[in-house]
Amino acid sequence: MRIDILTLFPEMCDRVLSESVIGRARAAGLVDLRCHNIRDYTKDKHNRVDDTPYGGGMGMVMQTQPIYDCYMSIWRDGEQPACPPETAAPSPAEDGEEAPPDTPKPHLIYLSPKGRVLTQQRVVELAACDRLVLLCGHYEGVDQRVLDEIVDEEISIGDYVLTGGELPALVLTDAVCRMLPGVLADTACFTDESHFAGLLEYPHYTRPAQWHGVEVPEVLLSGHHANIEKWRREASLRITLEKRPDLLEKAELDKKDKAFLDALRTRRGEEA
Amino acid sequence: MRIDILTLFPEMCDRVLSESVIGRARAAGLVDLRCHNIRDYTKDKHNRVDDTPYGGGMGMVMQTQPIYDCYMSIWRDGEQPACPPETAAPSPAEDGEEAPPDTPKPHLIYLSPKGRVLTQQRVVELAACDRLVLLCGHYEGVDQRVLDEIVDEEISIGDYVLTGGELPALVLTDAVCRMLPGVLADTACFTDESHFAGLLEYPHYTRPAQWHGVEVPEVLLSGHHANIEKWRREASLRITLEKRPDLLEKAELDKKDKAFLDALRTRRGEEA
Repeated sequence: MRIDILTLFPEMCDRVLSESVIGRARAAGLVDLRCHNIRDYTKDKHNRVDDTPYGGGMGMVMQTQPIYDCYMSIWRDGEQPACPPETAAPSPAEDGEEAPPDTPKPHLIYLSPKGRVLTQQRVVELAACDRLVLLCGHYEGVDQRVLDEIVDEEISIGDYVLTGGELPALVLTDAVCRMLPGVLADTACFTDESHFAGLLEYPHYTRPAQWHGVEVPEVLLSGHHANIEKWRREASLRITLEKRPDLLEKAELDKKDKAFLDALRTRRGEEA
Repeated sequence: MRIDILTLFPEMCDRVLSESVIGRARAAGLVDLRCHNIRDYTKDKHNRVDDTPYGGGMGMVMQTQPIYDCYMSIWRDGEQPACPPETAAPSPAEDGEEAPPDTPKPHLIYLSPKGRVLTQQRVVELAACDRLVLLCGHYEGVDQRVLDEIVDEEISIGDYVLTGGELPALVLTDAVCRMLPGVLADTACFTDESHFAGLLEYPHYTRPAQWHGVEVPEVLLSGHHANIEKWRREASLRITLEKRPDLLEKAELDKKDKAFLDALRTRRGEEA
């Protein structure tokens, strides 16, 4: 998989993506991550990429030209198929501009608080793509016209405001890359995790067996695999019911899960 | 405000927080951000901070001791009041451990997919604190016992899975810092933004006035402030209704806003 990130802070993004699990995945050739400086594409003689907003107001707005040219240069570079196939139609070339290439348009995601809120389900879908391009806004925002013309999807990582699109792009890249084959040691690493099966994860324990007077739950030391599985599943269900009951509506639950939850709810009702 | 981040990747975190708006705020002394390496606190002779999980399974679990000692060292360092005041009671010291200091316990947030999902409202509340400590988990997770003992609040940045708590901690730090007095040029910079008043933001435009055959909306060139304000407010309402109608339930709306939304809904109903 290849992911191109369009940003004003390519070195910072590259630094984050060189660390830990994702850094090792890049080094092993499991994913091709490239950070591009939008500023390298400006035609402004002072190297500017932003200007004051029409209509007044605080802050600066990123201009159309550098973003458009940066994206088109990435589109021309490489023949990977777009994903998903139903991306926007290529826009007509302006006077003096090169026509868009014949290759499929690479799927461009704009990280924005206006986007659809990211979920693990969308992460899994995006991890099946061959190629993604991520656009990071900065300053007050981006000129709407270039967004209307080239962006295929807007994604928000949550209902809060950040300084720019860089952290959201890094969050999305991290979430997608760790789902790629070979990046984690074993698929068991993520199938157990919070949100993967729609439940929050059970608690973890490691050595020492006693710490500050608190012991590890006995079942985990028993070596009895079926009992350990049962304990973990029930702990997941209990934690999800306590902290995020909304998740239970969409989670994949079998008969035993439902019976356990019913018993928990009854007990809670009696205590209340 | 002071924020301490406990992580296995302090240099990477520090690099991100040295960039752009937050970097300038640090340089100007508006916020005191410190990244601590949990590994510096391990008493393991091989410098390890993790071990295999009790009960089996893939991945490694971060151990109690290095995290506890790192946090206690930060608690001992500095006299800033905790926030919010109703934090957990200090835990009793173990044999051979120093007793917790008499100062209030610094509010410790664990970034975790099990936490309460972050919202701009919680960001605003946290920005009123004098001091925060953020704990980043990594690998498969953190031994539950140290979490039970020292963590005051668990926050998730969204319903997806990441490699570690570093990006969530950076997201939270960025969101909180930009709300501090003096960090942005003017409060107008954030009061207009998506999610601040519970609405998505209006579109932005900057030079050139015509690009790829598309013109900037005429009203923005008119210089008529009241009309521009009205256009922007209505654009915010329209975009929020289209993309995130759920936000309208909690947004602060006046009579005019409600009338405009009703008219939009009626028109949509007629078109459908």
